[in-house]
Amino acid sequence: MARFADITGLLERQAIELPSWAFGNSGTRFKVFGTPGTPRTPFEKVRDAATVHEYTGLAPTVAIHIPWDTVDDYSLLSRTAHDHGIALGTVNSNTFQDDEYKFGSLTHTDPVIRRRAIDHHYACIDILSEIGARDLKIWLADGTNYPGQGDIRRRQDLLAESLRAIYDRLGPDQRLVLEYKLFEPAFYHTDVPDWGTSFAHVSALGDRAMVCLDTGHHAPGTNIEFIVAQLLRLGRLGSFDFNSRFYADDDLIVGAADPFQLFRILVEVVNGGGYGNPDVAFMLDQCHNIEAKIPGQIRSVLNVQEMTARALLLDRDALRAAQDSGDVLAASAVFMDAFYTDVRADLAAWRENRGLPGDPMAAFAASGYLDRIATDRVGGRQAGWGA
Amino acid sequence: MARFADITGLLERQAIELPSWAFGNSGTRFKVFGTPGTPRTPFEKVRDAATVHEYTGLAPTVAIHIPWDTVDDYSLLSRTAHDHGIALGTVNSNTFQDDEYKFGSLTHTDPVIRRRAIDHHYACIDILSEIGARDLKIWLADGTNYPGQGDIRRRQDLLAESLRAIYDRLGPDQRLVLEYKLFEPAFYHTDVPDWGTSFAHVSALGDRAMVCLDTGHHAPGTNIEFIVAQLLRLGRLGSFDFNSRFYADDDLIVGAADPFQLFRILVEVVNGGGYGNPDVAFMLDQCHNIEAKIPGQIRSVLNVQEMTARALLLDRDALRAAQDSGDVLAASAVFMDAFYTDVRADLAAWRENRGLPGDPMAAFAASGYLDRIATDRVGGRQAGWGA
Amino acid sequence: MARFADITGLLERQAIELPSWAFGNSGTRFKVFGTPGTPRTPFEKVRDAATVHEYTGLAPTVAIHIPWDTVDDYSLLSRTAHDHGIALGTVNSNTFQDDEYKFGSLTHTDPVIRRRAIDHHYACIDILSEIGARDLKIWLADGTNYPGQGDIRRRQDLLAESLRAIYDRLGPDQRLVLEYKLFEPAFYHTDVPDWGTSFAHVSALGDRAMVCLDTGHHAPGTNIEFIVAQLLRLGRLGSFDFNSRFYADDDLIVGAADPFQLFRILVEVVNGGGYGNPDVAFMLDQCHNIEAKIPGQIRSVLNVQEMTARALLLDRDALRAAQDSGDVLAASAVFMDAFYTDVRADLAAWRENRGLPGDPMAAFAASGYLDRIATDRVGGRQAGWGA
Amino acid sequence: MARFADITGLLERQAIELPSWAFGNSGTRFKVFGTPGTPRTPFEKVRDAATVHEYTGLAPTVAIHIPWDTVDDYSLLSRTAHDHGIALGTVNSNTFQDDEYKFGSLTHTDPVIRRRAIDHHYACIDILSEIGARDLKIWLADGTNYPGQGDIRRRQDLLAESLRAIYDRLGPDQRLVLEYKLFEPAFYHTDVPDWGTSFAHVSALGDRAMVCLDTGHHAPGTNIEFIVAQLLRLGRLGSFDFNSRFYADDDLIVGAADPFQLFRILVEVVNGGGYGNPDVAFMLDQCHNIEAKIPGQIRSVLNVQEMTARALLLDRDALRAAQDSGDVLAASAVFMDAFYTDVRADLAAWRENRGLPGDPMAAFAASGYLDRIATDRVGGRQAGWGA
Repeated sequence: MARFADITGLLERQAIELPSWAFGNSGTRFKVFGTPGTPRTPFEKVRDAATVHEYTGLAPTVAIHIPWDTVDDYSLLSRTAHDHGIALGTVNSNTFQDDEYKFGSLTHTDPVIRRRAIDHHYACIDILSEIGARDLKIWLADGTNYPGQGDIRRRQDLLAESLRAIYDRLGPDQRLVLEYKLFEPAFYHTDVPDWGTSFAHVSALGDRAMVCLDTGHHAPGTNIEFIVAQLLRLGRLGSFDFNSRFYADDDLIVGAADPFQLFRILVEVVNGGGYGNPDVAFMLDQCHNIEAKIPGQIRSVLNVQEMTARALLLDRDALRAAQDSGDVLAASAVFMDAFYTDVRADLAAWRENRGLPGDPMAAFAASGYLDRIATDRVGGRQAGWGA
Repeated sequence: MARFADITGLLERQAIELPSWAFGNSGTRFKVFGTPGTPRTPFEKVRDAATVHEYTGLAPTVAIHIPWDTVDDYSLLSRTAHDHGIALGTVNSNTFQDDEYKFGSLTHTDPVIRRRAIDHHYACIDILSEIGARDLKIWLADGTNYPGQGDIRRRQDLLAESLRAIYDRLGPDQRLVLEYKLFEPAFYHTDVPDWGTSFAHVSALGDRAMVCLDTGHHAPGTNIEFIVAQLLRLGRLGSFDFNSRFYADDDLIVGAADPFQLFRILVEVVNGGGYGNPDVAFMLDQCHNIEAKIPGQIRSVLNVQEMTARALLLDRDALRAAQDSGDVLAASAVFMDAFYTDVRADLAAWRENRGLPGDPMAAFAASGYLDRIATDRVGGRQAGWGA
Repeated sequence: MARFADITGLLERQAIELPSWAFGNSGTRFKVFGTPGTPRTPFEKVRDAATVHEYTGLAPTVAIHIPWDTVDDYSLLSRTAHDHGIALGTVNSNTFQDDEYKFGSLTHTDPVIRRRAIDHHYACIDILSEIGARDLKIWLADGTNYPGQGDIRRRQDLLAESLRAIYDRLGPDQRLVLEYKLFEPAFYHTDVPDWGTSFAHVSALGDRAMVCLDTGHHAPGTNIEFIVAQLLRLGRLGSFDFNSRFYADDDLIVGAADPFQLFRILVEVVNGGGYGNPDVAFMLDQCHNIEAKIPGQIRSVLNVQEMTARALLLDRDALRAAQDSGDVLAASAVFMDAFYTDVRADLAAWRENRGLPGDPMAAFAASGYLDRIATDRVGGRQAGWGA
Repeated sequence: MARFADITGLLERQAIELPSWAFGNSGTRFKVFGTPGTPRTPFEKVRDAATVHEYTGLAPTVAIHIPWDTVDDYSLLSRTAHDHGIALGTVNSNTFQDDEYKFGSLTHTDPVIRRRAIDHHYACIDILSEIGARDLKIWLADGTNYPGQGDIRRRQDLLAESLRAIYDRLGPDQRLVLEYKLFEPAFYHTDVPDWGTSFAHVSALGDRAMVCLDTGHHAPGTNIEFIVAQLLRLGRLGSFDFNSRFYADDDLIVGAADPFQLFRILVEVVNGGGYGNPDVAFMLDQCHNIEAKIPGQIRSVLNVQEMTARALLLDRDALRAAQDSGDVLAASAVFMDAFYTDVRADLAAWRENRGLPGDPMAAFAASGYLDRIATDRVGGRQAGWGA
């Protein structure tokens, strides 16, 4: 197995994009709990995101979501980010919260509504240009709740047409990243339900169209690391939305539900050349329904970092030898050895060497930041999915 | 196979309780769509529920949910129901929408919060007495999102204690019905996740404690009709919450996702003596997120009626003979024959004979009711899960 | 809705290929039960398959599986089929039952074993040419049981290379059809686990490479009809392996577990131009572990026929109108109306008009065929998966 | 967190029962691969089991399975075990491999077949008495493949009757342990599919009837540690069948598929008083389809030991404090800290102190045992599920 000292160069290259909406309130259809200090504006979200980076050195960018992060002046939002040591990243579109989209957006049978949805993406591309970011991410909530409600096939054709219109509007340095999801909010069929569908569409669009893999968007039993390996092989893995889940799209902290799965995913990322590769964006997409949000994000990027270290430590030569000899138990032992290695003390020491707190969770807790925002952010309307 | 004429006496006994909340707005965490005409008050919900009964003769009671249906005068609400030809039924408690319940209610480690949750159930029992209904239904949202967040075992003990306090408050003609659910809103562990847990608790409580089976609350692959048969055998099936789903707790119209499953469930209900049995309440628990609510409920009770007719038509003698002879294909053929029988024309004629519209969906559509409420119910706040 | 008379022309075009192995013994890892009369040779299997066609008019071809159906003279086997009124169809390869394939075949790291597996497919192509059939079907059991056991990415590259070698050997009128399967016999990763993987490979190969969709090979909750629609749209749906399941790859009789799912699948087949289309082969792939095999196959093709009739009866104009108006309940009603239509009497009458028994199950039972083969087929070794 | 030195006393109490069948050949319905050295007789299986104990000190007993381990003289088998340093343990019955049991055994509608199945269990009890062991374990494969094939309710009643007959035959120091399983080999309904059913039956039988929890026998998404906590609370957790799985009942090495799940299970075992408790038997039930069997068993018991150490190290005081304060992230941190602690070096040192090899896998590999049995065990018929 590699020694920790051998991998620090690679660890330095780690960058994980935070979702601005992780700092706002979220919840289930049953209840959204509020928390003192929750941001009221995109500027406050950016401020919180910058704090995560300040304590970890891992989160240099923050993704925004339109219209949740609509502001009058995106340059100002961008400068604010820079002033706090981070940058704005991916722009996420939203065509699921207007009344017009009740029965679809990019796949709607009504051309007026499709046009409206396409125009929303044009507006997102304008923002992308304004903030100088690269990726337009589309998670499409379109789908139906009842068999017969919509024409599955026709909707695919409309989707292809709408995506073409959006793709053709991209600048030469911009990308369209198409996320897939098994179900929710649609409960019978979803128009982009699986990686195969996303892959088929982005392949048809062109070189700057990629797939986004959200780790919580699969059917039970799906081997996610296989999809990672396959998309890397096909050259179409554009980004990750990291989170974890026990059941559906639970949006829990990455690594919380099945740490070994996260390890396996990261092993495939490394194997397939996706680590330290600017074409493969690491992002979080999580909901801190009941836990504190900023420390929740700190915990999350640390989880990714720790597991990345384990994946990098994997003794690939020994593994290959065991694989080639058909020694199942030896191969498994090499693999598990990396997973069970406790990298936490080494990481803490390394962080301190780089001027970061060895224990970012404790340092943040001691900083008084949460108390400060609870005191300062009084009045206004707390950010959430509806705002 | 029995002839349709042979089963009409049994069909007359069918009664399906409607959920008041089906008439209010519902949705997903991503969006709740509103509809013109949505009730603003429990009285308007009762009115809509009565309309479903008027067109179908199948829905003589409506369940209420506290606090969503809180009124100053429950006797008045009850009289309103009677005036429109129906009655109030099951009282559903709610301990998942107050901020205090963020980490639990009946299972909370803090005795003050448990007390508050128990008191809420006492208030529900008072309402039960006031409206002269029988069943207090508890769906407990308690659970945790992260391993370690709570002590699973200790919470079971607290739950048993809380349920005991509630059960002991019941009047001699009242019942406690405990619902189970695999997950949501809790995403790691749920305190009453399966029928076994609900059964263990109600068995410990006493004869008037029963299990509620919500058809959408199981893990993928669960054989629900087996649980129906088992709970009937154990004498603990208190009620159904009917709905259907393709994925999680989708709360679609009963029979929409898997009609054959509904058939199998109803066959076991009939086999186990649960049909026409006042101890086994048939209720709906659905969310009409995107379809019209009142016709959604009409469609739902008709689905149950049609499938009940098929289940009653099953040739049980022929089936038993095939089963005993080990003729798998013959048994299957008898079973499927009932399922594939088109009972719709017979049911329409029978409805007309009883003074009901042969096609309740068409009759309701022609009535102009939806237009009227859309015109009349202007202003105020539409009912939903938050109100 | 269309009248039955309107669809008989289409029904005449229905042809369902039977799997020769359905007539041999099958079972689970726990037990394979034998039955009197089970074929001992491929010739006897062909004879049984022909009987299914004789009673139904629906099954003009039978697929063979190599080496289970290895014979000295394939022309003789083919002539035997013709003599009994059917033809040989798809040739299925098998690289999962030789000791060499313990750790893979087309994906094995050892080039000698890959060569052996490729050669087996060459032999299958020779048989294909000899019997004058079109499709070489590859269901690849390759995969691993433990994380780390194999290199997922490298195996994909080897797979692509092996498939290329096989594809290039095909004659101009022959096709390679690549089946996918979530899991089993491999329990961690499978090299062709989903339609996306199969699609990526066949797209890379060329126009005569297609995907085979086995209805039992998906993760729980997968919307199979969506995949049908998508593959038809992409021009890559080569064939179906029909069966049904409640849990994993149960290989039950098609339509037995979820008849409504079969309906939805067939609706998409018709919508997408896959019905009556020679490019889309309908096949069965089932295991009659405990039920009688020949009547099991008769029941199966009848199930497909009945459900096809319902799918053809769907009032597509009314459905489109309801879809376009956003009337969810109306669209659902049109859809369900076709599903609930009892087509059995019409089909029986139509069969009789064509000189077939109205009730093929009863006619076969009355024929004494099962008794005859039980008497005649004594001695020898009953066919099964091992032979 | 506890220090390793604090838990060694508890670790000494660990005892894991091995399944004799793990040493024989196993596989899937597609193929059973043989291995040189596979035991031909129960005596050779016992010998292999003893070897696992010799290298680990963790496996003092071996479970037997009747008829797979039928011998003329059970006292001799027992003495052989003792001579090699272990003892015979649980007796497992088998009513799924005789032709009579095609449609059921303890639930069969034919009283003659039920009698036969009951008598088989009487024979198992006689063996139990002869070898001086305590537990009769019943995994009942009974079920049906098609809706309607059997009468679910009637079969439950027959099951209760059969279990009563068996239970009443037990000696005062013997126990009946009833295992449950979601599906396989039955593919529609299983007569003991879930813990609730097993619990309902054993509660009705008496104090010496317990539930066996096989970790691979649940629906996807089931929270297994919850069931552990619940059964311990109810006093009915009789034993574990440890293994792991990604999909169905894959029977992989325990801890291989989801190590964190194993950790959570063991935490609940400790919390609920099930560790070091003779009433709760730890057993393996695995199939080494493609990996070496003896080292597979060694790896398995080491996995359980390592994870038990982590579970014992959990800082329960800190956890309780975090839970009571509602600090989700702090509670999670305490929990994960124990999981991520690398106990392997401490365990190796501790093993050596006790006269065991620090690295049992390496020590066994160096011993030449596998080569010896490959040389010695030539001829005869290798043990497997059919023998």
